[in-house]
Amino acid sequence: MFEFEEERSELLEKIEDLVERKCYAELRDLLLPMEAADIASLAGDVEEKLPLLFRLLPKGQAAEVFVELESDEQELLIRGFSNTELKEVLDELYLDDAVDIVEEMPANVVHRILQHTDPEMRKSINEILKYPEDSTGSIMTTEFVDLKATLTVADALKHIRRTAQDKETINVCYVTDIHRHLLGWVSIRTLLLAEEEDLIGDIMECNFIAVQTLDDQESTAQALSKYDFLALPVVDTEGRLVGIVTIDDAIDVIEEETTEDFEKMAAMLPSDKPYLKTGVWETWKARTPWLMMLMLSATFTGMILTHFEKSLVACAILTSYIPMLSGTGGNSGTQASTAIIRALSLDEVRFGDLFRVLWKEFRVAVFCGLGLAAANFAKMMLVDRWLLQNPAVTPMVALVVCATLVGTVLAAKLVGCALPILAEKVGFDPAVMASPFITTIVDAISLLVYFQFARMFLGIG
Amino acid sequence: MFEFEEERSELLEKIEDLVERKCYAELRDLLLPMEAADIASLAGDVEEKLPLLFRLLPKGQAAEVFVELESDEQELLIRGFSNTELKEVLDELYLDDAVDIVEEMPANVVHRILQHTDPEMRKSINEILKYPEDSTGSIMTTEFVDLKATLTVADALKHIRRTAQDKETINVCYVTDIHRHLLGWVSIRTLLLAEEEDLIGDIMECNFIAVQTLDDQESTAQALSKYDFLALPVVDTEGRLVGIVTIDDAIDVIEEETTEDFEKMAAMLPSDKPYLKTGVWETWKARTPWLMMLMLSATFTGMILTHFEKSLVACAILTSYIPMLSGTGGNSGTQASTAIIRALSLDEVRFGDLFRVLWKEFRVAVFCGLGLAAANFAKMMLVDRWLLQNPAVTPMVALVVCATLVGTVLAAKLVGCALPILAEKVGFDPAVMASPFITTIVDAISLLVYFQFARMFLGIG
Repeated sequence: MFEFEEERSELLEKIEDLVERKCYAELRDLLLPMEAADIASLAGDVEEKLPLLFRLLPKGQAAEVFVELESDEQELLIRGFSNTELKEVLDELYLDDAVDIVEEMPANVVHRILQHTDPEMRKSINEILKYPEDSTGSIMTTEFVDLKATLTVADALKHIRRTAQDKETINVCYVTDIHRHLLGWVSIRTLLLAEEEDLIGDIMECNFIAVQTLDDQESTAQALSKYDFLALPVVDTEGRLVGIVTIDDAIDVIEEETTEDFEKMAAMLPSDKPYLKTGVWETWKARTPWLMMLMLSATFTGMILTHFEKSLVACAILTSYIPMLSGTGGNSGTQASTAIIRALSLDEVRFGDLFRVLWKEFRVAVFCGLGLAAANFAKMMLVDRWLLQNPAVTPMVALVVCATLVGTVLAAKLVGCALPILAEKVGFDPAVMASPFITTIVDAISLLVYFQFARMFLGIG
Repeated sequence: MFEFEEERSELLEKIEDLVERKCYAELRDLLLPMEAADIASLAGDVEEKLPLLFRLLPKGQAAEVFVELESDEQELLIRGFSNTELKEVLDELYLDDAVDIVEEMPANVVHRILQHTDPEMRKSINEILKYPEDSTGSIMTTEFVDLKATLTVADALKHIRRTAQDKETINVCYVTDIHRHLLGWVSIRTLLLAEEEDLIGDIMECNFIAVQTLDDQESTAQALSKYDFLALPVVDTEGRLVGIVTIDDAIDVIEEETTEDFEKMAAMLPSDKPYLKTGVWETWKARTPWLMMLMLSATFTGMILTHFEKSLVACAILTSYIPMLSGTGGNSGTQASTAIIRALSLDEVRFGDLFRVLWKEFRVAVFCGLGLAAANFAKMMLVDRWLLQNPAVTPMVALVVCATLVGTVLAAKLVGCALPILAEKVGFDPAVMASPFITTIVDAISLLVYFQFARMFLGIG
């Protein structure tokens, strides 16, 4: 039933074998009952056999598999297609999938694709291509069911039956006036439950949420998820219905944006290809800039240490606790910033909550800091002083380390929760403000506090 | 249109004012066209006025709002409900929503809820409650459309019209035999396009993916997203159809699991409540254990530093570069581990790819390391030595720091990419193996390398 992953390697061997023995009928029977997404996921492993497998599939399934392939695999197939083959696949595609494919292809392939799509589709593709990347217009489809308010239910159902073949979904239908302004919507369930002679205008839902073509695709996707809709209507600046965004595309957007958040929070530039499809060079380009910046920003902590060099020479044991302090500060800050960044992106926290958040993190930080400090004091006395017999670890040194620990955790939590909220307020991406950046700031604060306490309690510096 | 967030504070003021002036009819007209999710999101701000607003809504909308509320708000309302009010709301709920609510309530409230649901619903609720948390059974609904293969399309449509009111979705219908074994499925689109006298058995899709009640809810949600389905059938261990999981519930699961991944990667125990709803104490409990563990594990880096104390006293300038080295190591490791953890959870990378991943990270690390080392060498010579006039920063010291930098980045990338893959292989959660844990290991490696190079090139220690 749902055991594809377990059978994967077995399946690959079987395919290998059938291709070898040229048992194409058997191979086709093996592929026919499979889901398109599963066949597509094998593409990376069958490599040069992909065109052969693809040609064995019936038109409809072939197109479904085609949509699920990575763009480099799609390009390979298109380059190998005869003109007739290309046209056959293109005719089976939904508009939004065709657009996705065109967007990823090099210019000469795009030219060939557009040459072989029928004129109406070509026009629609070109229209959607005009919308900026990341806009709602770029992920919408124009293949939706459009009804008039004056139709009876019986006529509407007839209309749907006649045109359903080319529609991305019939589960939600949209009602427009003669100027294509959106008036309302009606679900297929409502249509089926209504009387045949009811008028669409009487049964339609007039309260609706619509998005605009230029709205950010992420906010559109979040709206679909928040309101539990299967599709959202997209209108142009004059309120005319121009397309719809369906839930499957919204999920893809949400997953992409989540991946981007993960990447940004780990100090990488976002990439839009799967890990193993990204070349070494591309990965390097995505990772080096932030590493470089953060490395150079560590100059400040280095300068602080150089400045207090004499204290460190006078009391060398202090050096041993720097990694622990900076590690704990980094981890505390990351906890707070991650919690806030996620809450911001799920819309659970807004700028107006800043002081509530700061007050909460303050209390959490005090409890965390005191707990950690107590544990650390015990550990320094029992392990470092008594067990490892290091006489330099005096109670006074432990006190300095533990007091710094409390200050570090406090600074880390407050900076960690405030920076992302402030970043969003001024229009920056909160995810970019995440751990590494905060760590650098907290490291510096922590060291300054450390030497201040050392001066006060140990009389050095 | 889609401007709820902007109008939020204005709306709250208007509600406040209408309640004050007791203009309930006007208030009702204000709420009527609003989406349930939006009304629910105001609940946190209207506080004690919530029951009043709730009572103004018509039954259907009230139930929709109820489902979208946080569980503490639901509890508050239930405690205030008369028995009749409670029954009215419960009658309007879909089964899976009722189960979600029951799961979150304290025992006495659960008792009262079950008392006021009709016997059939009570039986279904109790059945679903039996499935373990995080299992597919716990998120499914039993309110699906069930057809027999021997029905004609006309009869099937009649059956759907008669029963649709209580079904979570009619967009996908399932076909079972007399023993309730799943035979196939048919979409409402196919039904509408078929001839009235066609048999369901002839037009149904016999290739299907089904999940089991005990499957992990996350894998079920991922399957829905991967295959672009609106619903997946759930079967018991004997292959009998017992429920379905719909896409809206799958999205909720995906968002929850993503939040959990974020939390685990930031060294927190996962919580299932929104940030501002989690108390200080709960947040403290989620954050302290890992902080404590990571703090104590920094003992090793401390021991390494104590061991090399003499080298540090002999060449104090080396201390200044420790934060930079450990920061860069941490960031490099986080980049690799985050990329891999995300790829694992999107199923783009498997255990079999381990060597491909290691080889890729090795090359990325070499390029990153050399680039950073070159930049750092230049910076140490130009800024630290020449601009800040620190004679201790000799070319030899810079060489030691830069060589360590290359080694650190290499170790960080390799540990960072390998640990999550190995963790998943042995059944641990890769997200828990993330940055902080890796940072501790890399810190230790980095320091050992540092002092080794210092010994070799500077002749100290």
